Amino acid sequence: MSDINTNLCIILVAPQLGENIGAAARAMLNFGITDLRLVAPRDGWPNERAEAMAAGAFDKMPDVQIHNTLAEALTDTHYALAMTARPRDMVKPVFTPETGIKDIAARAGTGQKVALVFGAERIGLVNDDIALCQGIITVTTNPDYPSLNLAQSVALMIYEWHKAHNDTPEQSLDMGDSFPAPHETLNGFLERLEEELETSNFFRSEDLKPTMVRNVQNIFTRADLSDQEVRTLHGMLSALIGKKK
Amino acid sequence: MSDINTNLCIILVAPQLGENIGAAARAMLNFGITDLRLVAPRDGWPNERAEAMAAGAFDKMPDVQIHNTLAEALTDTHYALAMTARPRDMVKPVFTPETGIKDIAARAGTGQKVALVFGAERIGLVNDDIALCQGIITVTTNPDYPSLNLAQSVALMIYEWHKAHNDTPEQSLDMGDSFPAPHETLNGFLERLEEELETSNFFRSEDLKPTMVRNVQNIFTRADLSDQEVRTLHGMLSALIGKKK
Repeated sequence: MSDINTNLCIILVAPQLGENIGAAARAMLNFGITDLRLVAPRDGWPNERAEAMAAGAFDKMPDVQIHNTLAEALTDTHYALAMTARPRDMVKPVFTPETGIKDIAARAGTGQKVALVFGAERIGLVNDDIALCQGIITVTTNPDYPSLNLAQSVALMIYEWHKAHNDTPEQSLDMGDSFPAPHETLNGFLERLEEELETSNFFRSEDLKPTMVRNVQNIFTRADLSDQEVRTLHGMLSALIGKKK
Repeated sequence: MSDINTNLCIILVAPQLGENIGAAARAMLNFGITDLRLVAPRDGWPNERAEAMAAGAFDKMPDVQIHNTLAEALTDTHYALAMTARPRDMVKPVFTPETGIKDIAARAGTGQKVALVFGAERIGLVNDDIALCQGIITVTTNPDYPSLNLAQSVALMIYEWHKAHNDTPEQSLDMGDSFPAPHETLNGFLERLEEELETSNFFRSEDLKPTMVRNVQNIFTRADLSDQEVRTLHGMLSALIGKKK
């Protein structure tokens, strides 16, 4: 959990369902974000349904802040982006989730306190609240079914935030407790396999054989085999040709 | 909704809570994915709680497929990635969400049917199921609170899929129904503002004035003002200096 995470707060304006507040908190903590602020939650606070959905997240976070207005919730923040569809009657920078998060992440990196502001279920944010934010983030969704669940919308943004600071290697091959087989071991198997296939009259003609050998070899080479797996293949081969150890 | 979306299916293995199945379906449809398959759902199918959480999504999707085993659910697919933590005892390519989704998206683009496979709440996927998948996707989360909600995990992956095919412009300034003010209009205001500030003895010294003018101008230039907003500023200025129209 990097320090920069403390520079982000999530503000839910007039949330209706405790379940969504709890699910949002859970997603936040999954990615190390703990500053949650509620503006006029419909059912007050604390909220049993929120607790039940949060899977213990609230116990590992500072107290949720409760405010009467968005302006009050934003007091100590320097920059806020509103999650909303494009407003028809306001001039605002419009970001994609990725570019919006990069924007606030860069600001947070300089020590600014940044906020992501989410509206109520179904209703969303009213223009007076959007006006308090420096820009908006719009998620393009299926036009036939556009409305994202509130907690999932929070989860998507927190996930983007996490990605902006995450240095997980792009792809790796997990070898578990074993180690990749050296080429010598692999080739030992491939040579034996070729001999056994030759013995079994697998190669129909000398002309076709080189291509067929290559094809067979490719199957196993591509598999990034471990030592143990090569041993297993040897055992399989022995069993298949009827030779007991 | 692009055609490539029909080449992706989401498979939930032994899901326990109908709520999660419904929320997963909603997130899928939000981004145009409609092929949902359940392997041995705990509470059978159909499921009232799933319907309630899906916010009508099931009505806009083909029937959910129900299977007894993951192998059966995968029958017509060409490539599958499992959502799971790194397995200790298996050799598998391990992807981040982004690289994993790019991998399956590229395959789907060539006409392959691809699957994302999710395990049960808390329990996750068993090794026998992971073994049926060509690779795994691991989401790095807060080590003190790592467990993602099932439906949110589906939402994150579907969102990544959506991003892999989405050509929303990176950032734009939404002018609503108005139009950006030409520089002539903006400068007209800035010149007037400077004059009025001069008159009001705002500039403390001739030495400091050029810097102060630049600072003031920057404030308004950076705001990307519309014609209407410049008119508003003129009105504000008139009001402030006590000059009625």
